[in-house]
Amino acid sequence: MVDSTPSSVPTNVPRGFSLAGIHCGIKTNASKEDLSLVVVDRPTTAVGVYTENKFAAAPVLLDRERTPSEGIRAVVINSGNANACTGQRGLEDAVAMCRAVAAACSIDQNEVLVMSTGIIGNFLPIDAITAGIAKVAAVRGNDSEAILSAARGMLTTDSCTKTVQRQWKGASLFGMAKGAAMIGPRMATMLGIVLTDVAIDAAVAQRLLKEAVEDSFHCIHVDGHTSTNDTVLLLANGASEIKVAEEDEEEFGEILTQACQALARSIPADGEGATHLITIHVRGCRTNEDARKIAHTVADSPLVKTAIAGADPNWGRIVSAAGYADVPFDPAALELRLNGHLLFAALSPTDFVEEEISDSIRAAREVSIELNFSEGNAETRFWTTDLTSEYVRLNTDYRT
Amino acid sequence: MVDSTPSSVPTNVPRGFSLAGIHCGIKTNASKEDLSLVVVDRPTTAVGVYTENKFAAAPVLLDRERTPSEGIRAVVINSGNANACTGQRGLEDAVAMCRAVAAACSIDQNEVLVMSTGIIGNFLPIDAITAGIAKVAAVRGNDSEAILSAARGMLTTDSCTKTVQRQWKGASLFGMAKGAAMIGPRMATMLGIVLTDVAIDAAVAQRLLKEAVEDSFHCIHVDGHTSTNDTVLLLANGASEIKVAEEDEEEFGEILTQACQALARSIPADGEGATHLITIHVRGCRTNEDARKIAHTVADSPLVKTAIAGADPNWGRIVSAAGYADVPFDPAALELRLNGHLLFAALSPTDFVEEEISDSIRAAREVSIELNFSEGNAETRFWTTDLTSEYVRLNTDYRT
Repeated sequence: MVDSTPSSVPTNVPRGFSLAGIHCGIKTNASKEDLSLVVVDRPTTAVGVYTENKFAAAPVLLDRERTPSEGIRAVVINSGNANACTGQRGLEDAVAMCRAVAAACSIDQNEVLVMSTGIIGNFLPIDAITAGIAKVAAVRGNDSEAILSAARGMLTTDSCTKTVQRQWKGASLFGMAKGAAMIGPRMATMLGIVLTDVAIDAAVAQRLLKEAVEDSFHCIHVDGHTSTNDTVLLLANGASEIKVAEEDEEEFGEILTQACQALARSIPADGEGATHLITIHVRGCRTNEDARKIAHTVADSPLVKTAIAGADPNWGRIVSAAGYADVPFDPAALELRLNGHLLFAALSPTDFVEEEISDSIRAAREVSIELNFSEGNAETRFWTTDLTSEYVRLNTDYRT
Repeated sequence: MVDSTPSSVPTNVPRGFSLAGIHCGIKTNASKEDLSLVVVDRPTTAVGVYTENKFAAAPVLLDRERTPSEGIRAVVINSGNANACTGQRGLEDAVAMCRAVAAACSIDQNEVLVMSTGIIGNFLPIDAITAGIAKVAAVRGNDSEAILSAARGMLTTDSCTKTVQRQWKGASLFGMAKGAAMIGPRMATMLGIVLTDVAIDAAVAQRLLKEAVEDSFHCIHVDGHTSTNDTVLLLANGASEIKVAEEDEEEFGEILTQACQALARSIPADGEGATHLITIHVRGCRTNEDARKIAHTVADSPLVKTAIAGADPNWGRIVSAAGYADVPFDPAALELRLNGHLLFAALSPTDFVEEEISDSIRAAREVSIELNFSEGNAETRFWTTDLTSEYVRLNTDYRT
């Protein structure tokens, strides 16, 4: 597995939020948290970006109805069971979770959002969860341990917590996410939640979150699956009394994007069985869409990913993947660099020393692939992992 | 590796064609053919379908210029070197191959087509090839051994020859192809050539080949790579004096499609390291394009492919892949069958017995995935392989 850049231990959360995670009985290992709760001390702006999968899970259907909102008070998250492909009973269970939170926190059940991740197609152990909600509500806080337990409560096959903190003016922002590179046995992929104490208009928050997700969670490519449960939420409670005014939108949007990128990047960095985190820079395209198409096609190529696992500077696999991305470009102008070394230009490989490039791949857990086109000024950056036998084994033999 | 359905040994080729394959020195193993030649005794209708990769190899650029044609006399094929990403010198080498064929067969160099497959980015050993062309021209024939040596001369990482024969009225059709499931180290993927002694108008032949390829070679999915060299040629010399008249076009097109499907299917069936050939049937879509998108998305999913390798009836991975194919459909109407067993309907898994389905996957090298929608009458069929650790190992550790 790639050692992911260790998140610094989160020391505090934005004002007005309290949280915790506990084990309630969904996961068989009793030492693993499987239920987290975030509570806000006041009605809060909440916006979300959700999976576009046609089989969106019950919690996604519920949250979609309830956001954007300016009156959310809590988010409850369970791991180990995705409550996906569970029909009407799944929806009823999601509502039951909201009711349990409402009862425990003296708020209205309509003020609660839900996130679930885990196995698809099984009903939730709803009694264990509602009993757990009362417990987790009682222990919530804003110290390091409370924060980390909440971050652990959303994990499935992840090997580490994924958190981020940022400051902006006198306000702060805290985010946590889950998602491991190859999604586990029938596990839903990716959840993210960002908490901040700025005051922000719901419509603006929705737009900024959408843009941030576009440049972060939508730029990671692991197994190509858009899961039934993928969700990113942003909660902004205004407790800092710092307002994101119209002239601040771009700056705050940039902070939010950086936070989302840090979380997103930590997902492929935590790849089960992966040995490299690959960053794919695509520059000089006519449009962002073109750049994204090319980056996605390269990131999606098992031949590119196995080559990196084998420390093979296989420029042929990379340029030919760019070549079938269904984007018009002048192939004669394409330059390919791997870890900064120019491998291909003017339609031909350079006289690079293969062993030198291989050594540079072996020497570090991060690999940089740069593709420079001459069509325009649009660019993008994607993150993915290499593809190893171990990675496949983990996903083939999950019963053992 | 999947035991591919053994092609019956080809016993003859259509009238007017002679062929052979020899070792000329491109491959290091001197017992492996690496140069094949097909010669026709008269000017012949020739049409092609080519890769859309922006880095199309020299032989593709040459053939594209020369087809459709009614005056082709020969096709020369080499394996072990793709003559791709080789610039101006690559084009000159492709022309040099044509000149050598012209000299050996007393035809014009413009009447020759070229196919190359193998390593990208290296120049051809052109002297060895031109010397080889004189030799292979001298030994060409139409007996079984000549045919099989020609079929072997186009192989790279393939474990077996891939040939097909069909009869239509008094005419016949012979096809051969190369391509193994995971393409090898910088190997170009897929070549196919179909020879027939019908008489057919070049424009009609072009249309029928395009349709046949659409339903065959474009329905196999292995690693998602469209290589720099992918080419399918159809040569029709009219030697049977049987004409594809306007009223025959559909029937002959069907024969051609069946032949191409048999060849195409043999490619994933020969998957390096693969243990299953997966057929994905998608039915009840609004349009063929929708059906193709869904089939392609399922075939492209490493999670579906690792599940099959693990004999895991993981309906969640399959339906969620369909769910993000970017095709509108009513999820409530989707039915999923695996090896004929209904696993998922009405948004929920059925009460199938998991062990029973696993046993059926383990028991056979072929697996059938059927997705039935209720949007219309369009359908398609895709072929792919499972994804095993061995498969990745072969593509990672190719230096060893």
